[in-house]
Amino acid sequence: MSQSVTQSSTQSSTINRRIVLASRPSAAPTTENFRLEQAPVPAPGAGQILLRATYLSLDPYMRGRMSDAPSYAPSVEIGGVMTGGTVSRVVASQHPDYREGDLVMAYTGWQDYALSDGTGVTKLPPAMARPSYALGILGMPGFTAYAGLLDIGQPQAGETVVVAAATGAVGSVVGQIAKLKGCRVVGIAGGEKKCRHAIERLGFDACIDHHAQDFAQQLAAACPRGIDVYFENVGGRVFDAVLPLLNVLARMPVCGLIAQYSGAVASDGPDRSPQLMRTLLTRRIRMQGFIIFDYYQKQEFLAAFIKDMSAWLAAGKIFYQEDIVDGLENAPTAFIGLLQGKNFGKLIVRVAES
Amino acid sequence: MSQSVTQSSTQSSTINRRIVLASRPSAAPTTENFRLEQAPVPAPGAGQILLRATYLSLDPYMRGRMSDAPSYAPSVEIGGVMTGGTVSRVVASQHPDYREGDLVMAYTGWQDYALSDGTGVTKLPPAMARPSYALGILGMPGFTAYAGLLDIGQPQAGETVVVAAATGAVGSVVGQIAKLKGCRVVGIAGGEKKCRHAIERLGFDACIDHHAQDFAQQLAAACPRGIDVYFENVGGRVFDAVLPLLNVLARMPVCGLIAQYSGAVASDGPDRSPQLMRTLLTRRIRMQGFIIFDYYQKQEFLAAFIKDMSAWLAAGKIFYQEDIVDGLENAPTAFIGLLQGKNFGKLIVRVAES
Repeated sequence: MSQSVTQSSTQSSTINRRIVLASRPSAAPTTENFRLEQAPVPAPGAGQILLRATYLSLDPYMRGRMSDAPSYAPSVEIGGVMTGGTVSRVVASQHPDYREGDLVMAYTGWQDYALSDGTGVTKLPPAMARPSYALGILGMPGFTAYAGLLDIGQPQAGETVVVAAATGAVGSVVGQIAKLKGCRVVGIAGGEKKCRHAIERLGFDACIDHHAQDFAQQLAAACPRGIDVYFENVGGRVFDAVLPLLNVLARMPVCGLIAQYSGAVASDGPDRSPQLMRTLLTRRIRMQGFIIFDYYQKQEFLAAFIKDMSAWLAAGKIFYQEDIVDGLENAPTAFIGLLQGKNFGKLIVRVAES
Repeated sequence: MSQSVTQSSTQSSTINRRIVLASRPSAAPTTENFRLEQAPVPAPGAGQILLRATYLSLDPYMRGRMSDAPSYAPSVEIGGVMTGGTVSRVVASQHPDYREGDLVMAYTGWQDYALSDGTGVTKLPPAMARPSYALGILGMPGFTAYAGLLDIGQPQAGETVVVAAATGAVGSVVGQIAKLKGCRVVGIAGGEKKCRHAIERLGFDACIDHHAQDFAQQLAAACPRGIDVYFENVGGRVFDAVLPLLNVLARMPVCGLIAQYSGAVASDGPDRSPQLMRTLLTRRIRMQGFIIFDYYQKQEFLAAFIKDMSAWLAAGKIFYQEDIVDGLENAPTAFIGLLQGKNFGKLIVRVAES
């Protein structure tokens, strides 16, 4: 066999490895739900480019795409390639706007190679020091934090902002922007190590371990003036502890519900929705779901994000950490770990050397 | 006995009748929770005015004041006079800003007479054709409808707006303003008579009887393009039917939860809050509690309301109906009926002839 299935940084393979959805998870995904397949690398037709992935972003929203429950985006079909954003190189072009060697951000999914007609493809600066940042702090997770916190949360100096998954790709940025806006920031994270990181490296005022027996009491103690902004990205029992602490006129951007994605929240027990609605009414709380794709339509807001975040990074005002896993074949295990809170920083798969 | 306990329009009594909270209701209030007392009419001291109530407004929020659960406003104490807004006459004044005969709107509660130092007192135009309108369409309920619908709901022409308690003091105005903004308006009300009224007199496009067995199906059929704005003032099973119909980017001003006020919503059964949060996230819904007192701080917005509503009334574009009950002693029964949906239009007690 002259073909090689090992990726090399200098030589294109003729094999496209791709990870497809083998079956839908009934609860938490397992490696059984994924399958690694091999196919020939396709050739671009007129108006197409061939993209080779360098970095693949793994994000909690992908759990939703594995399910066939109605959502804001179509499900991945059984046997279909898992969706995902990548930093990719143009390795062949039949498209007038792209040249071989161009660095782009694209939604090519969990695979080595993909064809594109340019839809959803964004060129990156050729000299970008850290192209993988386009998947994190300067990409979707960073913009999610910026848009949800500033547009919906509207934090005012002196207010208390609480964010869960405090060391995650979104939460870590939410808390740091809130600090830059003069807020008291309280993080929630799983385990002492993450909490220490949130305080020592991210500069949060406090961070509470949600595994603690007295988690709710600790959270209340860390928020002596209540909570003005709660950036919701977990749901479940963390939200239960937050709800009684929300102040009058509190704002709650709802970005994700990772604790609910795999049905881990008990659906028996008392119905808490009347209490939720009552609290929302009597304290005049604003709760608003959002997905970042809506904000990509708002060109001025997006430009403000790129400008602000680039300046904060250049000035060393934002600490950003990546958790890089090598090899496409390790994406399923890394993704399962992400849903379990095992990663530390923005989870990225290095699919090939850049 | 020279004293008379009967109010007269031409002669001040020396007896102040007042209705106090005798006990807190455990579920729906009964007449046992109220007590009619008599006391001497107080005399105003320096800087005070003596007010005599003409009209007393009865509103659902008063149920909350009978409870000692934490809320946005203090509870009525046991033995304390029930709170409420009135249109009153100044019958004696030791205050430089008020003269005998002045017509005012004030929070003097469920009683014939009250002293005030002017706090919370608003002068009404002496020649106001219908002073009781200050308690309804030109007062708190009208402003509640206007502020919640326009500031939070932000209805756009062609969108579908759903409002429950469609013939109530707030709901009837919400729907009519939405029609003026070019929306499709679907009401929800209790009984065929109210539904017919909403369509024939208020001009709604449809109105669904929530007593109907197939209420949820009827509501879905009346909203073929889903729901863009749901003005929430009831909660409970009406909300359960609305939730699946909410469109992406729907707005939901939460003004009241009358179905929940007396604990009528079963608290056993499955916990629906995860589903609620999931819907809010995936459809990017904005839910926001509000109370109208917050909007009274916004002077420009209040002025816009008075201007718009006065113009709409003068042009015959808003239909407004009062349900007037005679006699302070009938306030408890009328209020209990209000919570049961028995009134038709804005419920007002005529305490004395104006």
